[in-house]
Amino acid sequence: MEFSLIDRIRQRTAQSRDDVRLGIGDDAALLAVPSGQELAVAIDTMVEGVHFPRDTPAADIGWKALAVNLSDLAAMGATPAWALLALTLPRADEALIDGFADGFAQLAQTYRLALVGGDTTRGALTISVAVHGFVPPGKALTRAGAQVGDAVLVTGTLGDAASGLQLLQQRRRGDAQSNYLIERLNRPTPRVAAGLALRERASACIDVSDGLLADLGHICATSGVGAEIEAALLPRSSALLDLFDDVSSRGFALSGGDDYELCFTVPPQRVASVQADLARLGCGATRIGRIVEGEGVKVRDANGQWLESAHQGWDHFRA
Amino acid sequence: MEFSLIDRIRQRTAQSRDDVRLGIGDDAALLAVPSGQELAVAIDTMVEGVHFPRDTPAADIGWKALAVNLSDLAAMGATPAWALLALTLPRADEALIDGFADGFAQLAQTYRLALVGGDTTRGALTISVAVHGFVPPGKALTRAGAQVGDAVLVTGTLGDAASGLQLLQQRRRGDAQSNYLIERLNRPTPRVAAGLALRERASACIDVSDGLLADLGHICATSGVGAEIEAALLPRSSALLDLFDDVSSRGFALSGGDDYELCFTVPPQRVASVQADLARLGCGATRIGRIVEGEGVKVRDANGQWLESAHQGWDHFRA
Repeated sequence: MEFSLIDRIRQRTAQSRDDVRLGIGDDAALLAVPSGQELAVAIDTMVEGVHFPRDTPAADIGWKALAVNLSDLAAMGATPAWALLALTLPRADEALIDGFADGFAQLAQTYRLALVGGDTTRGALTISVAVHGFVPPGKALTRAGAQVGDAVLVTGTLGDAASGLQLLQQRRRGDAQSNYLIERLNRPTPRVAAGLALRERASACIDVSDGLLADLGHICATSGVGAEIEAALLPRSSALLDLFDDVSSRGFALSGGDDYELCFTVPPQRVASVQADLARLGCGATRIGRIVEGEGVKVRDANGQWLESAHQGWDHFRA
Repeated sequence: MEFSLIDRIRQRTAQSRDDVRLGIGDDAALLAVPSGQELAVAIDTMVEGVHFPRDTPAADIGWKALAVNLSDLAAMGATPAWALLALTLPRADEALIDGFADGFAQLAQTYRLALVGGDTTRGALTISVAVHGFVPPGKALTRAGAQVGDAVLVTGTLGDAASGLQLLQQRRRGDAQSNYLIERLNRPTPRVAAGLALRERASACIDVSDGLLADLGHICATSGVGAEIEAALLPRSSALLDLFDDVSSRGFALSGGDDYELCFTVPPQRVASVQADLARLGCGATRIGRIVEGEGVKVRDANGQWLESAHQGWDHFRA
């Protein structure tokens, strides 16, 4: 079982990477980190019914399981290299396995990422992926380093994934806008190229997995600063704005998880050049606020009124 | 939630490793592989009710989740360095989390292993651990390389874990021998020092996770050889022999999983020195057979009769 699944993915992702000295099939893989590079490593888990709805297409599950991990590498400014996959599934379901392998491999090939190890076990559908990437020593983006006066930016648009989840739960789909938002939920785009472009330019960076307020809050806590956000500046897709009213779409953009955009801080004088470069990369970057003294994230509406900070990020252990 | 659990383990495993440039708390850890070393990486998952019984003490679960992964590094002859932990649990259960952290940390400290990343999610109790170790280029032990004429050896004793599982299932425990066998199931000892001692001496190596026949079968398949095993030579603990008859204990030793001993092959002229060194390391090594031309693993009983090879390793997807 183990080899048949892992082999299916390996066949689809066959990468002749010189740094993989021994791939799948032994007790461990043997890998060579290029000299002069540090290793960035992260692990993330997705559980059916918690991180994705039960009827999510298998290919989307495979894609997303890798995407959320690549997003962690993107947030560090690291170049993806290798992944390990631990897949737990209720039974040897051929369609699920093939679909999963298709989606996982499709994204892996984009980054010439090699699957170097895996384990397949029986149980409730749960996927853990560990990813490894390279970054020059001292050049990684972290959550620390945001300075008072820095601008706060985000790539892409916010709130799409959370609105897509609501559409799925309300069984609203079929039209192009709903499908777009659901696709944003199921097939997030890790901002790997943006993360690389931000090295030596952003003072701090994080990916928006738990929601903007929660994740920007992590930057503030780690950097020892506060942040002020202008709600009117939050980048929202036309699909989101068409299907939801202003208050709902703002809520999704502030607190919705699963967007996997990058939230980062840069000194004001670098904003224009960073925005130009990220526009060329296709995702763009919107300035949404600034770093201030103090702590926590405050949000001001279009009238200059502070919003109550009732919005929080996702906590999968909350009721 | 995530940080509270991961922090509990981190507090218990605080390691000042120079090679951890940035530990837990950002989107990814930043790690430096020592120059001149390759990285050995593996991932393994344990699911409650599949890989361990439902009433297993939390500390034993934490220990075993790491042990089975360290065993993979041992089988490669790699020195453990770092781990990632993905823990899925039904609810924020303080006692479970504390116990798990205790067991995990206890084993981690033995090897100065640093926990460098983690993810905590809600769902059925499932633990995936990814481990990283170092090995000099070209010196790793693999499943390939067994030569016709090589001796087949195993460390420690075989069959203890499978017999311990049967004792648990039959609710037989309390006496010292039963407790010993159950401890062998719940707290396996990864043979890390033995694996290091076998570098440049063993021609092939694997850890016995699925059962001797299955795992030695992997060596044979990868090396393109066959193996003949003498059942009378199988190392069995006195606890196993006291509590079970010869046929049962032989079955456990041949097919029982979860022992996490090393099975390896060495040229005949090296057997004595390898046995002497592994005796000094406390686990010992027993010669149980030899590598032959052909394929597959055959077992001969004390009367010289070939046993039917009905025994197979564990397949968690089999009914």
